[in-house]
Amino acid sequence: MPYRAPFDDFRFIFDHVVDLAQVTATDRFAEATPDLAAAILTEAGKLCEERLAPLQRVGDVNPARLENGVVRTPPGFAEGWRAIAEGGWVGLAAPTEFGGMGLPQALAMAVTEMLSGACLALQIAPLLTQGQIEALSHHASDEIKALYLPRLISGEWSGTMNLTEPQAGSDVGALRTSAVPNGDGTYAITGQKIYISWADADFMENVVHLVLARLPDAAPGTRGISLFLVPRNIPDADGRPGVANSLRVISLEHKLGLHGSPTAVMEYDGATGWLVGAPHKGMAAMFTMMNNARLGVGMQGIGVAEAACQQALAYARDRHQGETPLGTGGIVDHADVRRMLATMRAEVFAARAIALSCAVAIDMATATGEADWTARAAFLTPIAKAYGTDTGVEVASTGIQVHGGMGFVEETGAAQFLRDVRVTTIYEGTNGIQAMDLVGRKLMDGGEAAWRLLEEIEKAAEAARGVLPDLAGEVWAAAESLRETTEWMLTQELTERFAGAVPFLRAWARVLGAHVHLAAARAEGGSGRRTALARVFVGRLLPEHAALLAQARAGASDLYALGPDDIAA
Amino acid sequence: MPYRAPFDDFRFIFDHVVDLAQVTATDRFAEATPDLAAAILTEAGKLCEERLAPLQRVGDVNPARLENGVVRTPPGFAEGWRAIAEGGWVGLAAPTEFGGMGLPQALAMAVTEMLSGACLALQIAPLLTQGQIEALSHHASDEIKALYLPRLISGEWSGTMNLTEPQAGSDVGALRTSAVPNGDGTYAITGQKIYISWADADFMENVVHLVLARLPDAAPGTRGISLFLVPRNIPDADGRPGVANSLRVISLEHKLGLHGSPTAVMEYDGATGWLVGAPHKGMAAMFTMMNNARLGVGMQGIGVAEAACQQALAYARDRHQGETPLGTGGIVDHADVRRMLATMRAEVFAARAIALSCAVAIDMATATGEADWTARAAFLTPIAKAYGTDTGVEVASTGIQVHGGMGFVEETGAAQFLRDVRVTTIYEGTNGIQAMDLVGRKLMDGGEAAWRLLEEIEKAAEAARGVLPDLAGEVWAAAESLRETTEWMLTQELTERFAGAVPFLRAWARVLGAHVHLAAARAEGGSGRRTALARVFVGRLLPEHAALLAQARAGASDLYALGPDDIAA
Repeated sequence: MPYRAPFDDFRFIFDHVVDLAQVTATDRFAEATPDLAAAILTEAGKLCEERLAPLQRVGDVNPARLENGVVRTPPGFAEGWRAIAEGGWVGLAAPTEFGGMGLPQALAMAVTEMLSGACLALQIAPLLTQGQIEALSHHASDEIKALYLPRLISGEWSGTMNLTEPQAGSDVGALRTSAVPNGDGTYAITGQKIYISWADADFMENVVHLVLARLPDAAPGTRGISLFLVPRNIPDADGRPGVANSLRVISLEHKLGLHGSPTAVMEYDGATGWLVGAPHKGMAAMFTMMNNARLGVGMQGIGVAEAACQQALAYARDRHQGETPLGTGGIVDHADVRRMLATMRAEVFAARAIALSCAVAIDMATATGEADWTARAAFLTPIAKAYGTDTGVEVASTGIQVHGGMGFVEETGAAQFLRDVRVTTIYEGTNGIQAMDLVGRKLMDGGEAAWRLLEEIEKAAEAARGVLPDLAGEVWAAAESLRETTEWMLTQELTERFAGAVPFLRAWARVLGAHVHLAAARAEGGSGRRTALARVFVGRLLPEHAALLAQARAGASDLYALGPDDIAA
Repeated sequence: MPYRAPFDDFRFIFDHVVDLAQVTATDRFAEATPDLAAAILTEAGKLCEERLAPLQRVGDVNPARLENGVVRTPPGFAEGWRAIAEGGWVGLAAPTEFGGMGLPQALAMAVTEMLSGACLALQIAPLLTQGQIEALSHHASDEIKALYLPRLISGEWSGTMNLTEPQAGSDVGALRTSAVPNGDGTYAITGQKIYISWADADFMENVVHLVLARLPDAAPGTRGISLFLVPRNIPDADGRPGVANSLRVISLEHKLGLHGSPTAVMEYDGATGWLVGAPHKGMAAMFTMMNNARLGVGMQGIGVAEAACQQALAYARDRHQGETPLGTGGIVDHADVRRMLATMRAEVFAARAIALSCAVAIDMATATGEADWTARAAFLTPIAKAYGTDTGVEVASTGIQVHGGMGFVEETGAAQFLRDVRVTTIYEGTNGIQAMDLVGRKLMDGGEAAWRLLEEIEKAAEAARGVLPDLAGEVWAAAESLRETTEWMLTQELTERFAGAVPFLRAWARVLGAHVHLAAARAEGGSGRRTALARVFVGRLLPEHAALLAQARAGASDLYALGPDDIAA
């Protein structure tokens, strides 16, 4: 299936919805001129359309596999990775002193979305490497930075993230992998890790693992976790991959999707590791890696949604069944098919604009150091992750439905989108965890970021009343309801908050989605393509906020009134 | 994964929600005493738990395949089919004069649900055979009935349904397969058919195809379609499978799920066929087959949802992550996990009770011939099909989410439920087609069945006010909103109706779902397990009806304001 980079949307959102200009007006990002930004998007888009999209199905039907300890990757993936690396795309937002381009996350996230739409299974490799670059930049010693960052940024080496163990998934604090000092400044790492994406690849010169483990004197739980860098091959004096470390891929998972991406069970057997950051402060370092990775995973969902939307539309224009209300068109002209496609497109736009708004907040926080921007980025991240990936699953599933029977046949690729994207609501913290983060940690300061966002939404709605009174009124009223429930949430204990967390996050996504659509419609002067799409979102999807808020406020008592035996057959 | 037949729910729903007793009080179904019904459910449940559930994953990892023209089936499927056949389960509701048990559809549908929960890929074979038995019983000549029905009912032979052609999916009227009289009362059938489930199997003594085709003098569109019976092997004078007919399986589809079920492209090359029903009246005969098949497909969705719910609950009881609010339990005690599981269970109960209520209406129509029952069954069928299968997809997907990372790993089976059930919202008429049927054909009489259902819902809510004032009030108010939108719908042109069809159907499912939950709670005296579940449904899911009705009434103009180019990237 051909993939087209959504240049128009990026350009429009950057110019009219999330104000990328404020980022490039800072000293920190002054180099990201509009011309450079345009060139970046064009080049990355070309790579995705021409080189990576053809790998999508290749990876699905030629799964990564483990042969005599070597991870064999699908045909073309080596060349795909090289093309990504040589284009400088791994280091797009990485520090310039180590060879990165130092560009805003807003641009990097747009590129992440395109790579994901073209070939998600391959895109995971640069995403994780970028997370590792971020973590090392902030927490590693100068020696480690000097040795590893240039090679990760150039894509000669790749990076992985090792959190999960069989008994420690969402509860990272339960992990058991141990780190024992070797006496020479290094540590012996021993333990088993699961779900390690791109743990190895036959074309990778070296793979660098970031591993969470416990020092001998560590406290129990998350306060006793440290972060270690554990390379597959220990660099020699010249920085070239030297002797093999004591680690290995035990097995690869047989997964619902992402067959092209090797997901490994890893064994560390006294492997040599280097401490990153302070002892027992591994969680903080890992969170640096995870926060951007969370937004990146949101972009994965949106990228797949875009691709699924394009494919469903192409099918619906081509496929003729019965007479349509417009006379001659494909099934796209049937009202119910049009409804599905319009809804898919409206969701993709909303999710994309919210995620890029989060990226702009990250960039502004980086550039200005202002706490308001940091809080805004932190508040929007779980929403962007959960809504982006929920949209990926929902749009991919609706894409199958648009295809009818052909959607169930693997050759069309519609089903692969759903299989691939399904994991994005789970990894990097399940969407339930994201929602709990939102109602817990992200409201801990009394909801500062929430109030500022709500004020911004209401102000924008007021300003839009002249041009689009009906839409503006709906958005304003929804924001008011959301404000009331956010206030209510702050009065609740954690269990009640958690019981309502997922619908609460979804209600935020509905209101923010309507807000960005309204901004787009207003920028267009209140008539045109984007206004029509805004009407679909506000008229059809925004009304869901009321039911979501009702559920968010339902509390926990009805749930705990129903014991496990009551839920059984 | 072990499967447990949901006996309690069936018993409770039959006794307290859908009043199976009114069916067995009729002469037609007098033999279906409570004891017999209990024995039927117990026996079928045992078969499902012990013999069929173990085949679920076997079929997934050993797909049906075509070898030198022979359809090879997964290990154990032959024995599974024989167990179904020998138990008499194919002919549960079939006419007694040809060896069937003549029992109510309500019981047959409960059995269909259990078979589907245990092994959906295999269950499709009896489902289609039952549809064929139904069609032949109503429309075939006495000779054909005498020859074919006993063998189909005993499960010696199986039946298929051949509607779709590459250019004719939802638009059945576009089909081109031709039927030319041979001069001896038979016809030469020529054409290609796609998506033929269980088109052949290495263990099947004979396979009988019902094929839609056009006679030479046929009008264009659906008015020119006739139905033909085309056996794989033409029966000899003794009724034994004789010479091979001129038909063959060209290929099998590579599908998202249901790998154990062969889905074929069939070629008929002057194959000998017999006319079933009158010339050019094939659609009517096919609709007989499809109506019950639609309810059956709804049960497929519910069966898979039940199995997915059971598996997710078992996992959540077993899996420990972090401290839960209740102290020691598995992740089932975390509020968000409890929310997911409670919601899954509440949906399954609602979908099951609605579907069985539809089955009771079918039985009452059969037993009494009263038009009200026929209209009620016709109105409930698209709701039961679409809601049952939407529930299948939704619950299976949530089941994956409950599993976290393990949900993406195929070995757990959670992903297979989603892959398998995904097609049920598409086949037997997509859920969009179901919804269009509801707002079109099923409202053509001015909505008689709708008004009677709404009256019943409101009456029941009134009656429940004493015991459960809060729940009753919510249900009553929702029914009123639904009434208003149903009235509005009747004033609209078809395009506007179709634009709102899917959300309209879903709103009906929400209100009917709340109604059956309220009935269950009231039957329990307003406290206990079923009341707790009703509170979850009414408090968390019923509120969605408002957003659905808003979307149902949104009309079509916002959709057509957005052209295909506007939806493109």
